[in-house]
This record gives sequence, structure tokens and C-alpha cells, in this order.
Amino acid sequence: MSDDPAPRLASALRVGVDVGGTKILAGAVEPDGTLGPVAARRTPPRDGSVVLLESTIMEAVAEVAGGRAVASLGVAAAGFVDSVGERVMFAPHLPWRGEAVRRRLAAASGAHVVLDNDANAAAWAEHLNGAARDATCSIMVTVGTGIGGAIVLDLGAGPVLWRGRNGMAGEFGHMQVVPDGLACECGGRGCWEQYASGNALVAFARARVGHEPTVLDDWCGGVVERLTGPMVTDAASAGDLVAQQAFTHVGGWLGVGVANLVAALDPDVVVVGGGVSAVGDLLLDPARAELSRSLVGAPHRRVPELRAAELGPEAAIIGAAALAGAGRSRRSSTNR
Amino acid sequence: MSDDPAPRLASALRVGVDVGGTKILAGAVEPDGTLGPVAARRTPPRDGSVVLLESTIMEAVAEVAGGRAVASLGVAAAGFVDSVGERVMFAPHLPWRGEAVRRRLAAASGAHVVLDNDANAAAWAEHLNGAARDATCSIMVTVGTGIGGAIVLDLGAGPVLWRGRNGMAGEFGHMQVVPDGLACECGGRGCWEQYASGNALVAFARARVGHEPTVLDDWCGGVVERLTGPMVTDAASAGDLVAQQAFTHVGGWLGVGVANLVAALDPDVVVVGGGVSAVGDLLLDPARAELSRSLVGAPHRRVPELRAAELGPEAAIIGAAALAGAGRSRRSSTNR
Repeated sequence: MSDDPAPRLASALRVGVDVGGTKILAGAVEPDGTLGPVAARRTPPRDGSVVLLESTIMEAVAEVAGGRAVASLGVAAAGFVDSVGERVMFAPHLPWRGEAVRRRLAAASGAHVVLDNDANAAAWAEHLNGAARDATCSIMVTVGTGIGGAIVLDLGAGPVLWRGRNGMAGEFGHMQVVPDGLACECGGRGCWEQYASGNALVAFARARVGHEPTVLDDWCGGVVERLTGPMVTDAASAGDLVAQQAFTHVGGWLGVGVANLVAALDPDVVVVGGGVSAVGDLLLDPARAELSRSLVGAPHRRVPELRAAELGPEAAIIGAAALAGAGRSRRSSTNR
Repeated sequence: MSDDPAPRLASALRVGVDVGGTKILAGAVEPDGTLGPVAARRTPPRDGSVVLLESTIMEAVAEVAGGRAVASLGVAAAGFVDSVGERVMFAPHLPWRGEAVRRRLAAASGAHVVLDNDANAAAWAEHLNGAARDATCSIMVTVGTGIGGAIVLDLGAGPVLWRGRNGMAGEFGHMQVVPDGLACECGGRGCWEQYASGNALVAFARARVGHEPTVLDDWCGGVVERLTGPMVTDAASAGDLVAQQAFTHVGGWLGVGVANLVAALDPDVVVVGGGVSAVGDLLLDPARAELSRSLVGAPHRRVPELRAAELGPEAAIIGAAALAGAGRSRRSSTNR
């Protein structure tokens, strides 16, 4: 497409695509972060072919482009991306296993392609255009089924994502907070995400249904296995005490882990995103209280603000587009 | 002294001074990191005057200078230094409380003065000239009475210390690893340093003296309160099983916390310094085993090397001198 004879547009088309475990979402993003209409595709099965996955991604991108040439394409993947942004090393819900995704999508699109993981992309968007837009350094914690995260630092030359040496920085969910604690899918025990995630929320509620009065009893027909995170969120918003206690409990654990991150990194803002954060202060207020209570030296320092993400589930699209659209000058200032 | 009429030397004199809770140590440092003879003074009492403390520092510096003009003076302080390197905000064992230390010592010495905390200075020395000299990004964990630490990153423009927004990054010892765990002097509970420090080592040994056969019983005359960290170290080196178990226990906890830091930051080297680390592999081998066991994704990544610090108790002198000697160009590339 770089040899596409179509007339050049006044402004280069920047597209971001978020390749998640269930959906592929693509959108064109203006330089100021404004997102246009989003094209969605169902993610092909993880045991399917890489070719199908990548052609589905290109379909969504083509729908967004509408025949125009794509100048830059940012790809946010729900998986581990290597430290140079070339390969998806592993993705639990996608067929990519060490694939050279960046190069192949660049060939397919003719665009300048930047590949990163979805948490980095979302954090980048929140830092530039969202909840941390006034911050110098921010940590993003995404609370969904598990916990993901990313670190944006500024060493005086503008913000940069800290990706680490293996591209694996920001794996906050697997910091151990309870010795010999709950078993985690990672093989470890006591990982933070077992205590402060959507799964933890549901586990808390399930343990109480049938023992304490709650609308959740009705909503799941007395079958606790049918309880879901969104049910707990809806019940809490509707004033259900058990559901609200679940958020207080999970929010407290969220604050414990955030205090640990702040002790290590001392950022000025912590952004909380992900599905579970949609309830806002019901989750964040107990987290803030715990952060102020357990952060070392809290009375002698500025305790960082804990803020809800602003860009919602589209943050990764916006951030990926921003990472790619900024071109090589931006990339060269990062740890790649 | 900048107006000192003494003849200028071929090479500018760079001095580092480590202001600790018990000792003040100063030395001249060559650009390659070689440390000359060290001048030592006892630290004046913490309830004493700031004037006495600062004049004692200048005495040690003057002894090192031997009448020569000091071009640059790096000051490593055992306390919290603000994010711009001007003030010591608080230091538990020193009389400084928000004092403008950098400016005053610059006036007293006539030198270009850089002020930082001792863990940052030590980490900087180990990164440039010590155990992490081949690393791109390193974390230093200092295991003494408690746990301190520092982070050195490279975003493509050379190594920089990540100090955080309040200058309080690297407070690793107060990350919570046990919910409602042992009380910590910081006011929190379950802080990492309660489980992986010199104090933890002594507590482990004290609990066993009188119950299990150990030379420590004799060494403390049966009075466990007399047991010290150096006794446990000496006993372990001499083959005492209880003392060795103490290191295995503390080393395991060290590995737990290091795994948490690596999950968050993904560095390529972790340097372990401080007095407790002097035993080397007796502490580090159990820490390495625990790191490989509990680090998320360990089979799919390069697990960072855990290395003993190389520069010993003089690392902070060397690092402080390096921070000051590099002049403003180095400082402007840091997060100040």
C-alpha cells in the first residue's frame, strides 16, 4: 500500500488496533487522540491459524481505512511482546507463539507498524490524553479478570514507556502479596491478582450468597457458579450490601498492591483501568484509604493520586495509534 | 574555595562523602572509579546541631583534599533527599530536617555539590564500576538492618537513576509481603525488611538458641539479646547449621521480594549489597532459587542475574563522587 496510487490525504491516516482474546477493535485516531468509528471483529479461535488471525486484523483495519492509505498502524496485543516490538512471544488467548507480527502486518498494510502489549498501549493513551495527562510519571493498573499494568516515566526528555529488558515490565498482577496464598494460573501462589481482580470480586460474592441477604442470590438463581463480575458490579451500583462489601474488600487489596508499587517507583499518578474499575469510587475509595494507610512515609510525602481511567475499553486503540503515529523519533526515545 | 589561589591540578579533585548514622566517610575518586584513602569521622549525635554535623563533614572532606581545591563533591546521605537534590527532608539518625544541605555544603566547599541518598549513590557506583557494569538496567537491593534500594534505567541515552517524584523511589523494604505481618518501624505491618534483613536474621537465630545445637549459644553466653548479625554471619561461615538455616530463610524471603520487583520492572541485573550480603552465596543462592521458582513466566524469559555487590561499604562514596563529578550534563539527564 505504500505504492498505492491513491491521492495522498492532507493528514496521514493513523490507525490503532486492539487484538484481544475475544474481540479485535480498530479505529482511526486523530493526533489529538480523538477516536473515529470503531470496526470490530470476533477474534478467531486460539487454536486456529495465524494467517486467519492476521487477515481478520487487516479486515478491521481496511474497514477503518475505507480505501485510504494507512500511514501508521499501532497494534496492541493481549500478550507478551518482545523488548524490540517485533514479535508476540506468547498470548494465552491468541495463536501467536513467537511470531514476527510487526514485520508481517507492515508488509500486509504498507504502513509504519508499531507493536506493543495492550496494557502499555492503554497506559500510553491515558498518559497522553486521559487520566494522567497532567502527570510526569504514571503507573497504570488494569483490573479485569486479572491485573495488568504499565509504567510511564519521564527522565526529562518527554514521557516513555518502561518496557523492561524482556518487554515484561508491568506484570504487577503476579507480585506475591500473600505467602502460600491462593493458587494462581501462573503457577505461583498468593499473586496480587488473586486478591484484587474480577475473579476475586466474584469469589468474595460467591462465598456469601446463601449465607447473607443479597440480590445476587436471586440473580444467579441460587447457583453461585452463575455469578459473574458484571452481576456484582450491577448489584453494588444498585445498593446491595454484599456486592458493595466485595468492592470494599477487593479495593482494599488493590490499595495494598498500589502502595507496594508506589514505595518502589514513587510516581505522581496511578491510573486504574480495566472492567472492574468501571464502578469508580466504589472500588477506588477503599483503595485510596488503604494506600494512605500503608504507604511508607505517607505523612511526609505527597501520596500519589489514584484515578479512574478515562478512555475506557478504547484506550488501547488510541494508545497504539499514538505509539505508531509518533514515528521513529518517539520509539527511539524508549527502551527499545 | 573556587577563588582559592592554589595552583590548579592537572586533574580536577572529585570527592565523595557518605554521611551515615554512625560514620562519615570521605574519599577522592578517580574518573575510573578508583577510590583513594578514606577519611573517617564519627557522626555527631542526631539530637545535636546541624552546624556540627556539616562542619564534621567538611573536616573529613578537607582531610581528603589535603589543601587542594575540591572541584566536585558528591554527598550521599542516609535519609530522604528531595526530588531536586537540594534538601535532606528527613534522616532517622541525623539532625537534618528539611535542611538545604546541598546549597550550604556548596558554600562551605566552593565545589560543585550533588546530594543524593546513599542507596542511589551505591547503586550508581555498582552500575558504572561494580557488579552491574555490563547491565543496561539494574536494581540494587541493600540488605542491612533494613532494606534499601535504587533503580538505574537506560532509555537509550545512557544510564539514569530513577528517583521518583518525591525522591522516594526505591523504598523496597516497605513493600508489604505478609498481610497483618510483623510490625515495622515505619508504622506498617508485614514489610519486606521484617523478613529479609539483618534484623530478620538475628530474630531467626534468637528463636533457636537454647533449642537447637549451635555455637551461637556459647557466643552469646546463652543471652539471646546479645546475639548480633555479625555473629550469625561468622557462625554460618564457620559451618554452624542454625546460622546457615537463618541465611537460607532470609535468602528465601529476599528472593520473594526480588521476584516482585522483577515482575514490575524487568531489569537485567539485580545487585544485592549491604552488610548482610557480605556472606555472598550463602544468602544469594537461596534467593536465586526462590526468584526462579516464583518469578512469573520464569521458563519463558531471561531470569535476571542476582549478583553480590562488588564495591562494599565504599560504594556510596564512589557513587556520590561519580554523580557530582559528571557535572550538570549528567544531572540534567536524570529525573530532577
